[in-house]
Amino acid sequence: MTGMRPAAAVGDGVAAIDTPALVIDLDAMERNLAAMAAFAREHRIKLRPHAKLHKSAAIARLQIAAGAVGVCVQKLSEAEVLADAGITDIYVSNEVIAEPKLARLAALAGRIQLAIAVDSALGIDRLAAALKTADSMADVFVEIDVGQGRCGVAPAAAGALAHQVVSHGLRFAGLQAYHGGAQHLRTAAEREAAIRHVVSLVRAAQAGITASGLRCPLVTGAGTGSFVFEAASGVYGELQAGSYLFMDRDYADNEPTPHAPRFEHALFVKSQVVSRGPSHAVVDAGHKSHAIDSGLPGVWQRELVFGNGGDEHGILRPRPDAGRAALPALGETVWLVPGHCDPTVNLHDHYIGLRGGLANGVVEAVWPVDARGGVR
Amino acid sequence: MTGMRPAAAVGDGVAAIDTPALVIDLDAMERNLAAMAAFAREHRIKLRPHAKLHKSAAIARLQIAAGAVGVCVQKLSEAEVLADAGITDIYVSNEVIAEPKLARLAALAGRIQLAIAVDSALGIDRLAAALKTADSMADVFVEIDVGQGRCGVAPAAAGALAHQVVSHGLRFAGLQAYHGGAQHLRTAAEREAAIRHVVSLVRAAQAGITASGLRCPLVTGAGTGSFVFEAASGVYGELQAGSYLFMDRDYADNEPTPHAPRFEHALFVKSQVVSRGPSHAVVDAGHKSHAIDSGLPGVWQRELVFGNGGDEHGILRPRPDAGRAALPALGETVWLVPGHCDPTVNLHDHYIGLRGGLANGVVEAVWPVDARGGVR
Repeated sequence: MTGMRPAAAVGDGVAAIDTPALVIDLDAMERNLAAMAAFAREHRIKLRPHAKLHKSAAIARLQIAAGAVGVCVQKLSEAEVLADAGITDIYVSNEVIAEPKLARLAALAGRIQLAIAVDSALGIDRLAAALKTADSMADVFVEIDVGQGRCGVAPAAAGALAHQVVSHGLRFAGLQAYHGGAQHLRTAAEREAAIRHVVSLVRAAQAGITASGLRCPLVTGAGTGSFVFEAASGVYGELQAGSYLFMDRDYADNEPTPHAPRFEHALFVKSQVVSRGPSHAVVDAGHKSHAIDSGLPGVWQRELVFGNGGDEHGILRPRPDAGRAALPALGETVWLVPGHCDPTVNLHDHYIGLRGGLANGVVEAVWPVDARGGVR
Repeated sequence: MTGMRPAAAVGDGVAAIDTPALVIDLDAMERNLAAMAAFAREHRIKLRPHAKLHKSAAIARLQIAAGAVGVCVQKLSEAEVLADAGITDIYVSNEVIAEPKLARLAALAGRIQLAIAVDSALGIDRLAAALKTADSMADVFVEIDVGQGRCGVAPAAAGALAHQVVSHGLRFAGLQAYHGGAQHLRTAAEREAAIRHVVSLVRAAQAGITASGLRCPLVTGAGTGSFVFEAASGVYGELQAGSYLFMDRDYADNEPTPHAPRFEHALFVKSQVVSRGPSHAVVDAGHKSHAIDSGLPGVWQRELVFGNGGDEHGILRPRPDAGRAALPALGETVWLVPGHCDPTVNLHDHYIGLRGGLANGVVEAVWPVDARGGVR
C-alpha cells in the first residue's frame, strides 16, 4: 500500500525524524478534532468530515469515535481503500460516469453504507443499472451548483433528477451543496454573504423538490471556512468540513469567523537546511513535498520567508523586518506549514504522529496515508 | 511499492484505461529517447539522464541500453529504490547533510557506482566520515552556483572544496553546474546567453582548481531547454537532461533551439468528462493528478482551455476562437498534457504504456513509478 520507508519509527525523538517528512502534532490535531465534534453536537448537526484531506483509516476512525456519522471522499478508489480498512459509512461526494467504475461502486455498496452524488440523467441511468446488476443499494444525493461553477445542476433542475432517482427505485437522499470558493474569501462578512446566497439556492431547490411531491431528507455540504454559516442556516443537516483537522496556512489567512471554534496548525513538513549561502538557506523540501496550489508554505515560528526552489528545494530568506541572523544554519531543522493540506498529504506515504510538541516530542504513531494516489 | 491498482492491464485497449491515469505514448517516447541518444553520440558527450523525472527502473534501463552512462537522481531514497531494481551507476546531484542519511548513502556506495554533490565543508567532512565508517567510496562533485541562486558555492570557492575532498582521500570527480532557470527562458537567444554566462563561471571554477594543482575530470549539468549550448561549450562532458523523454507543456512553449533534436509530447493524463454544464465540461483530473507549478495542463488536440477546478476536477471551456460545439460530451475522453512532468509523475503509482497512439492504441506495459514519493 505504501512505497517509501517511513521517516521515523514509534518511540523516536523528533530529532530522529528523517526529512522531508509529513508530521502531525497529535496534541493540536486532537484539540481540533474535539472542537469540531463539540460544535456539531452543540448545533445538533451531523458531521461527516471529508477524508479526501487525510486519506487515512486511522484518522477516520478517530473522527467517527468522536461522533462523526461517517466520512466523505471524492473518489471511488478512496472509498474502496477506506472500506477495506474497516470504514463502513462513506459518501462519494462527486459524480461517477464510467461504467466499469460504477460496477465497482455497486459492488462496494453491497458491503458498506455507501452514498454517491449525481448531476445528470446519464449518470443516474448508469448508476441505477450498475446497482441493479449488483443487486445493491446506495443513497443518492443530487448535486446543485451553488456558485462554484463546477459540478451540479441549477437548483430548478434538482426536482427532475430527484424524480429520476426515485423512478429507478433508488433512495433519493437529498442535496449536495458545496461552495469551495466561498471557503477562502478573506473576511467573515464575505463568507457569510456567499453562504447566504448558497442557502437561497438550496431553498429554491428544496422548494422545487417538495412541490413535485418528494421529500428532501438532507442537505449536505460546507467546509472549514464557512461551516458556521451553513450550520446556522436551518437548511443544512450535515457538515463536510475536513481541513479543520490540520488547518492549511491558507485557511489561517482568513479573518476568523465570529463564534467559530479556533483551530490550530496540526500538520507540518519537517525539513532540513542542506545548503547555506551568505544571504539564503536551502531546505530539502520543494513542491514534491508540499502542494503549492494555494501558495508556498509558511515557515513555523521563524522570521523567514519560503521561496520556491523547485521540486526538491525551498529557498529561505529573512523576513524584511529580520536580519541575516534569522537564517538557519546548515543542518538545522525548519518546520513548514503547507499552504494546502489535502494535496500535500497526497504526496506522502506516511504520517509521523508526534506527541509533546515539535521541539521535544516523541513519535507516537506512524500511519499510512492509505488512499494516497486515490485519484480514480 | 505501489499502492493503487493500475488503471489498466497489458493488452487492454485505450478505451479500457480507467481515469485519471498517467499514460505514456511509447512510440513518441522511444523517438525522443533515440533522438537524445543520437545527439549525445554525435557530440561525443556523455548522457546521464535525470531519473527524478521518471523515477522508473524500467525507463532507466531503456536509457542505459540506448547509451546513457547511468542516471542522476535528486534524493538518496530514489537512488536506493533504483539500485534495488538493478541500476548500478547513479549520481545524487544534490547535497546530503543528515548523518543517518549519509550512513545509508555510504552503504549504497558499497554496492553500486555512486556519486554525490557537495557544496560545504561540513557536508564533505560528514560524507568522508560516513564513507570511512562503511569502508566504501563515492565520486564527489563540487556544486557551483551558475545563476540558479540555490545550492552551490561561488566559482572561486570550488578549488578549496575540491582540495578538502581530496584531503579526505575521496575521489574529486569534477563540477556540478546546472542552471534550472535557464531552461525555461522563452527565446533560444536568451537561453544561449544564459548558458554563455554559465560556461564562463565554470571556466573560472576550473581555472581555480587547475591553478591549485588539481585536475577537474568532468563538468556535469544541463537540461532539456539548454543542452545544445552546454554540449557546444567545450567544457561540459556530461548532460543531465531528463524532460526530453516526455516533454512538459511548458518546454513546448519555448522557442525551439536551432540544431536541437525535436522532441514530442509523450506523457499524458487520460481524463474523462464527469459533469457537463451549458458552457463548460468538468473532467475528473485536478491537481492531485497533475502538477500545476509550471501552469495548468494543455488539452491535447482539442479547441479547449483547461481551468483549475481544484484537487479533483478540471473545468474545460472552448478556446476563444472556438464555438460551444468544441465542448466534449459527458463521458468523453480528454487527454491532458502536464505543464511539468516531474512532479506530475510523482503523483501516480503506475505508468500505462500505450502502443499505437492515443486514439486506438493498446496497453503494452504497466510500469510502477518505483521511486514515487522518494523525497528523502
